[in-house]
This record gives sequence, C-alpha cells and structure tokens, in this order.
Amino acid sequence: MFPTLALLAQEGGAQVIGNDSATVGGLAPLDQAGPEQLSFLSNPLYLPQAGASRAGAIIVSRKDFDALAEQGQAGQRNWLIAANPYACFARIAQWFERQGRPAALPGVHPSAVVAADAVVPVSCTIGPNVVIESGVRLGERVRIVANAFIGAGAEIGDDTVIQPQVTVYHGCVVGRRGIIHSGVVIGADGFGFAPDFGPTGGEWVKIPQTGRAVIGDDVEIGANTTIDRGAMADTVIEQGCKLDNQIQIAHNVRVGAYTVIAGCAAIAGSTKVGRYCIIGGSANLAGHLTIADKVTISGGTSITKSIAAPGHFTSVFPFMPHAEWERNAAIVRGLGRLRSRLQQVEKQISSRATEE
Amino acid sequence: MFPTLALLAQEGGAQVIGNDSATVGGLAPLDQAGPEQLSFLSNPLYLPQAGASRAGAIIVSRKDFDALAEQGQAGQRNWLIAANPYACFARIAQWFERQGRPAALPGVHPSAVVAADAVVPVSCTIGPNVVIESGVRLGERVRIVANAFIGAGAEIGDDTVIQPQVTVYHGCVVGRRGIIHSGVVIGADGFGFAPDFGPTGGEWVKIPQTGRAVIGDDVEIGANTTIDRGAMADTVIEQGCKLDNQIQIAHNVRVGAYTVIAGCAAIAGSTKVGRYCIIGGSANLAGHLTIADKVTISGGTSITKSIAAPGHFTSVFPFMPHAEWERNAAIVRGLGRLRSRLQQVEKQISSRATEE
Amino acid sequence: MFPTLALLAQEGGAQVIGNDSATVGGLAPLDQAGPEQLSFLSNPLYLPQAGASRAGAIIVSRKDFDALAEQGQAGQRNWLIAANPYACFARIAQWFERQGRPAALPGVHPSAVVAADAVVPVSCTIGPNVVIESGVRLGERVRIVANAFIGAGAEIGDDTVIQPQVTVYHGCVVGRRGIIHSGVVIGADGFGFAPDFGPTGGEWVKIPQTGRAVIGDDVEIGANTTIDRGAMADTVIEQGCKLDNQIQIAHNVRVGAYTVIAGCAAIAGSTKVGRYCIIGGSANLAGHLTIADKVTISGGTSITKSIAAPGHFTSVFPFMPHAEWERNAAIVRGLGRLRSRLQQVEKQISSRATEE
Repeated sequence: MFPTLALLAQEGGAQVIGNDSATVGGLAPLDQAGPEQLSFLSNPLYLPQAGASRAGAIIVSRKDFDALAEQGQAGQRNWLIAANPYACFARIAQWFERQGRPAALPGVHPSAVVAADAVVPVSCTIGPNVVIESGVRLGERVRIVANAFIGAGAEIGDDTVIQPQVTVYHGCVVGRRGIIHSGVVIGADGFGFAPDFGPTGGEWVKIPQTGRAVIGDDVEIGANTTIDRGAMADTVIEQGCKLDNQIQIAHNVRVGAYTVIAGCAAIAGSTKVGRYCIIGGSANLAGHLTIADKVTISGGTSITKSIAAPGHFTSVFPFMPHAEWERNAAIVRGLGRLRSRLQQVEKQISSRATEE
Repeated sequence: MFPTLALLAQEGGAQVIGNDSATVGGLAPLDQAGPEQLSFLSNPLYLPQAGASRAGAIIVSRKDFDALAEQGQAGQRNWLIAANPYACFARIAQWFERQGRPAALPGVHPSAVVAADAVVPVSCTIGPNVVIESGVRLGERVRIVANAFIGAGAEIGDDTVIQPQVTVYHGCVVGRRGIIHSGVVIGADGFGFAPDFGPTGGEWVKIPQTGRAVIGDDVEIGANTTIDRGAMADTVIEQGCKLDNQIQIAHNVRVGAYTVIAGCAAIAGSTKVGRYCIIGGSANLAGHLTIADKVTISGGTSITKSIAAPGHFTSVFPFMPHAEWERNAAIVRGLGRLRSRLQQVEKQISSRATEE
Repeated sequence: MFPTLALLAQEGGAQVIGNDSATVGGLAPLDQAGPEQLSFLSNPLYLPQAGASRAGAIIVSRKDFDALAEQGQAGQRNWLIAANPYACFARIAQWFERQGRPAALPGVHPSAVVAADAVVPVSCTIGPNVVIESGVRLGERVRIVANAFIGAGAEIGDDTVIQPQVTVYHGCVVGRRGIIHSGVVIGADGFGFAPDFGPTGGEWVKIPQTGRAVIGDDVEIGANTTIDRGAMADTVIEQGCKLDNQIQIAHNVRVGAYTVIAGCAAIAGSTKVGRYCIIGGSANLAGHLTIADKVTISGGTSITKSIAAPGHFTSVFPFMPHAEWERNAAIVRGLGRLRSRLQQVEKQISSRATEE
C-alpha cells in the first residue's frame, strides 16, 4: 500500500497543499515522474520543468510554489512545501528505502567469533565470520554484516552499521548512527619512524602508535578509506562528517564536525581541518597544517600551508592538449628566464626614457 | 612434455614457418631465450636482437619476417607469423600459465556460508569463509577464492574469478569472464548528501543510493579498487574494460567499453567516459563531465571540463629541483603582475612609436 | 612496577647521568611530563623547554646536555645521554608498548583453514578465519591476526605480523619482522594487456603475471596498500623500507632498501627507486624510470622522467584563492602567447636601437 502525502510530509518535514490523503508509490525526477510518483524542485532553474511535470506531487520551496501559483500552475496537483526541498526529498527517499530493506534479524551468526567478555546487546546483528575481540563494547542495534574485525577494547555506538571486510583496530571508537563501508580500516598504525642511520648502516626505528582513532556520531566512511590511530594523542573525526571512498587520514589529524571529504583525498599527519569544510576528490593536505572552518578545497589540489580564513582554494595545472602542454610546461620551467627578459626590457625602456 | 609449435600457433592465432612439430618449454625475452624457448618481436627496433637471439622460435609479423629473410636470417630457426605478435605472445603465455595452474576443484568449502536460495551451480568453486547471501545467482564455473562477500541478490557471470576479501554489495552485477582482485568493493553507497544547516545546527542528510553497480563481461578490476552503486540509476562499467588497483569510480559514472584505467585514478560522480579511452595513473576527473571515445589522459592529470573529441590531454606542473620550483611557483603566483608589466611595456613602446 | 633508568638506557642505547636506579612510568612531551615521566629533546630549539620541564628524566644528546650544564640546568634531574635522542625515545617507547600489550598465545584458532602441507611452526599465532593454502611456509612466531588469506606456496618470515583482511597471493614472499596492516594486498596481478583491436572489434589480451611480489626484512606496509606481482620477473621491496597507507606499487617495480613512501603515492610499472629515498604523499612516478639513491620527492608531485642524482624534486601548482587561480590558470594556458609578445617587444626595442 502506498504512503499518503500526509505521512511523507511528516517524514520530510513538509506541509501538504492539496489532498493530503493522496498516495504516491515512490520518487522520480521531474521529467520522468508519473501521477503515482513524487518529485522535487530544488533549483528555480527547473521551474518550467516542474510546471510541465506529470508528477502526482512535487516538493517545492514556498517561494517556488508562489512563483508557480502566479503562473497559474499550482492547482494542477498536490504539493509538499518544504524549507529545504532537497533535504526533504532525501528524508522521504530514506523512508521509501527503509520500507524496501529486509529487516536485520538480531542475533549472532554461529560462525562469528565473539570474545566471552565482549558486550554485545541482544539487539545487535552480528553476521558470518565476524571477529569481535576481548573487551569490545557494542551499542544497541549495531549491525556488523560479515567478515569484519573489531579489535580488543574497541567501542561501536548505537545503530551503527559495519559493512563486510572492515577492520577496527584495538581501542578505537566509532560513534552512533555511523555507516562504515567495506574495506575501511580504522586505527592502523600511523606512519612514524625515527631515522637512525650511521656510517655502518642503520634503520628507521618505529615509534609506537599508542593513541586511538576516534570517530564521532553520524559519520559515514566510504569504502577502503583508512584512518590511522594517533601516535600518542588520538586521531579524531568529529560528528556529522562524511568521508567518501579511498581517503587517507594520517595520525593525529583532527577533522572538524560536518566537514565532507571526497574520494581519494589525503590528509597528512597532525593537520587540523576546521568544521563545515569541503575537500574535493584527490586533494592532498600536507602535515602539521591548520585549516580554518568553512574552507573549500578544489579536487586535485595540493595544500602546502595553513589556511586562516574561509574561502575556496585551488592548485591545479590547467589541462590542455598534450602537445600544447609540452610547450607550456617548457615555458613554466623557464619562467625565471622569462621574467629576467622582461626586467631587461623594462630597464632598456627606462634607461632610454632617462636618456631622452 | 613440451607443446609443439603447431599447438602454440593455434593458441596464438599464428602460422608456423619451419618445423611445426618442434617443441618449446616456455617464453623468454629475445636476449634471454635459449633453443628450447619461444620469444617474440613486436617492435621492429629490435630486429637485430631477433637476428642474434638463441631462441628456438620467434613470433613475428609477416613484415618483420620478410625483413629478416632479406638479411638472410630467416632460416636459422622456426617462426610463428602473427598479425599482432604481442597479442599472440600474450595468448601463448596464457596457455603456459594455464598448464602450471592447479585446477580449481568445484565444490563449496564447508566453512562458506551460502544462503539456501542462492543459485550456485555445481561447477562453481566456493572457498573458505565466503559469504553468499539470499537471492545471489552465480554463473557456471564461478570461482570465489576465500573470505569474500556477495550481497543479497547480486549476480556473477560465468567463469568469473573473485579473489579474497572482495565485497559485492546487494543487487550488483558482475559479468562473465571477469577477474576481481582482492579488496575490491563493488556497490558501496555513492557519496550523496543534501546539506540541511540552519542557524541552530543541522546535518548532511543521506540520499539513499538505490541504483546498482553493473560490471560488463571481460572486465578485470585491480586490487582495492572501489566502484560505487548509483544514486537512482546504475553505475556502469561496460564490457572489456580493464581497471588497475586503487581506482575510485563514483556513483552514476559510466565507463565505455574497452577503456583502460591505470592505478589510483578517480572519476567523480555522473561522469561519462567514452569507449577505448586510456586514463593514466593518479589522474582525476571531475563530476558530471562527458569524455569522448578514444581520449588519452596523462598520469597525474586533473580533468575539469568535458572533452568532445579524441586526443591526448595533460595537466601536470613540470617537476624540477625544489629550490627552482620555489622560484617558479612564486612567479606563477604573480603571473597576473607579470602580464601587467608586459602590457605596460607594450604601451610604452607603442606610445613612443606614436610620439616619434 | 616502574622500570629503572638503567633498564631504559639499555633499551634505548643511552647512558644515565644521575641516579640510574630512579624509575619512570612512561613517556611524555617536555611540557606535559611530570616527575614520574621520561621526556626527550631532539631539537636544540627546545632547550629552554627542557630546562623548564618537570620531567623526572630527559633523553638528550651530549651536546645539548653540555649546553644545559653551562646554563646550570643539568643538576636538577636525571638524564639519558644518547647519540640520537629521537631514536632512543622510539626504542624506549617500544619497550613501554611491549609491556602493555597482551602476549599473543601461540596456536591455530579452530576456525582457521590451514592446508595440511603448510608449514606452521608451533610458535605461530593463527587467528580466526585465517586461510592458509597449500605449500605455505611460515617462519617462527609469525602472527596472523584474523580473516587474512595466504595463497599457495607463499612464505612469511620470522616474527612478522599480518593484520586482518590482508591478502598475500600465491608464491609471494614477505620477509622477517614485517608488519603488514589491514587490507594490504601483496601479489595481485600486475596491469598488463596486449591491445588486439581490428576493424570488427577486439580485446585487451591479458598477459599472465607470473612473477612474484617479494618483500624484504623489516618492512612495514600501511593499510590498504597494494603491491602487484611482476609480469615475468619479480616486484621487489628491499629491506627496511616503510610504506604508508593506500600506496600503489605496480608490477616489476623495485624499491631500494630503507626508502620511505608516504600515503597514496603510486609507482608505475618497472620503475626502479633507489635506496634511502623519501617519497611524499600522493606523489606519482611514471613507469620505466630510474630514480637515484637519496632522492626526495615532494607530496603531490608527478615524476615523469628518471632522476640521476640525489636531490629534492617538486611539481605542484601553487595553491591560491580560486578566483585568483582562474586568472592565473588562464595565463598559464596562454604562456606561449605571452612569450611571443615579449619576443615582439624585444624585437621592437632592438630594431629601434639599431635605427638610432
């Protein structure tokens, strides 16, 4: 049975205009939705598409609804008025997704290896081949899908989902409502060695990494991302951060709350990233930096110095056809000479001006 | 017992000149091969090496054979004439490799956890600790080596090999004759969140990722590569693509058939890459781009705009000694000023010309 | 019971000045250490902090101790005099870390799947769900934590630790005293294909990867790093190397002894890196290069040609505010034109000089 607009409006934090007992069976883009589907308009650029859509109901802002009403297009269907239509859409999409998802049955799979002293509430779902070492404490309703490893003394908060092949090293902490995707490694040793080389040889002496990796509440971590434990103090990902796949967070990094980081980005040791930052894919930040709140870093950018105030920063050589790049790269290598030639010309002009 | 040249020629799609019942025991480079080995010449630069080689037989193109014959060097040994000697070598190397490889015995290891309703043909080899969830469908002769996870409803095509520690999330599809290396994650959630922040706080609202990741036939995926599922539509890797290690493919990307991608490359969300493209290692492509067929992208390159026609593109700051880089980087930061000074000089010259 | 300074001095290779039967309970930075803690001074910049520290004992160089003594600050506490205070600190920290670590009990967990002909000494610790295939040879005291896979015929040297979710492919070798972190993949197939495309289609023909990946003694490999097996010859990581997380080492690469590589770096096929090199995070090296000993490569740098002598090399576009970058990137694209304009100006000046 399809949900009513009244129910969905409640899920999404919206208000119905029209028939709130009308029902829809799912979500679809404006140009694909039919009369039994709900769509959304989050960018006023698409107002004409909203007017033309066959969707049974549309999520809109009050402002966009008024604009449509002025054009005489508000009466054709039902509407959900939301302060943030995109977030409202996301929450309603979550509701539909939950309905379609088979419930995880609580219990511990017989093939799981769980230490006798681990705290595993009966509301948890522990899948096949999961290994839970001594002293681990799981919150309520934690779900560990399969083949994951939770090291001695680690803690996982309520309602967190751990996908297959995840490793949480000993003593590390994952908060509540987290989603940890496959292949994530939390709390491997940071990269710390003291060089000790003399005339007759030597070695890199390992500095024990005795801090933890601590992940706040409501953090999602993408597949194969790695977050190292701290050397003495902890590595910290604060609440509400979202990390994409293949990200590397080195030891003693702190990532401020609600910062988002796209795939393959890397943050070197001891760097502090502020709150509400946006770090693009394949970006890399050097170690021991401090990045202010609300800084945006473009994809592919290398950050080599601290950033003291909000702003958008970039460091990408512009791409071009390879033959053209070869010419330009040669000029870049010779920029010092180019500048000298310009100085020479300036001198000649200025000396001639003096002569005259 | 060593194979005859007749057999190998058939495997490699070649024609024997000389004694086709002669045998060889393996492959070796021109300068290392002995009378019991087969070598190959794929680049005419190495014609003299071919002439001087001790190899019992050599794979060559018709053209290179004729060149050697003209030099009176064709009679010394047996030859395999192939349209594409390098591909012929690869196919014969595959034949030797198959002989040395222990046969995978069909069957399900007792430690594997296989859902009662999963379709697992008797020709499949399912190794230790493999988890196969409900509704999974495996093709004939699928081999899952060990410790891998195949989520509910996923499909794996005939003759595909899945190495240890692989995760295939629910509902995803891998085609026939695929090779999926260790640590690969197919179908983790794409990175999609709606920002919903107000004066009193807020959150990134997760957008459910309900599409699939769909991998075509004859695709090889390197170790620890991640391919996210789509948000609503699917992420697609078309047939015949070859992906190296540590690659990140974001949600709703489509990679055209026969495209090859080197290690650590990253493709952001919704970007469409054409067929027969070559993407270099550590390259990154921004989201929502369209890349034409037969585009080559250099290693380390950032692609920030769509590319409409075949070609070779690059965006790498040329490397240089660090001290020199410091000087050049400072000039790059001040390029605007440099250009202004040049304009100033041009004006002075032009005004003086006018004065004269 | 706390250890005496005499014991710690022996562990760290230092000499006690003061009371060598005094005890300390652990290590702490100069500004946080109390009378029951040991600290260290490795940079003379911090001499004043050492003077002011409340630490019960401090590790210093002879030179720094003499400087403190001259200032009358050497008598206040006990001292450990070390040739390399940082390495001495690291070794003493290792001692403390060992005391706190629960001993690994030798034995094979009942859920492990170990081939009958594998060599597993009784001093080894084999954890849950570990898979050890036929012909594997483990050294003494090898510890494989959980859920790892050791392929047929692989060898692991004495005292090496293999963390969860690691894959060592068939025939590969890991030396003694190694630490292999979670998610590492050693010996997956290198990325080698022969193109064979004609007018009616074609394919990338796989070149069998029949070499091995061979890792020397005393190598640490960070989480999710991948080291491919060689095509015919081996991929080699020599002794004493330290590799961070998420690194990609392609087939037939050789990394010289004691080289360190930071996170997310990538080395393409057949490149030879010298000894004692330092490769920064997210750097990438093209294939078929030769890099001399003692070369330092900055983070984010692309190396596209061989480097014949020691030195520090960089190739990073300097980062700047995005709007400024847009202006500078446009100038970089037009550098050829800029140079032509400068040439034009030079010509005009020179012709005018001739005219005069």
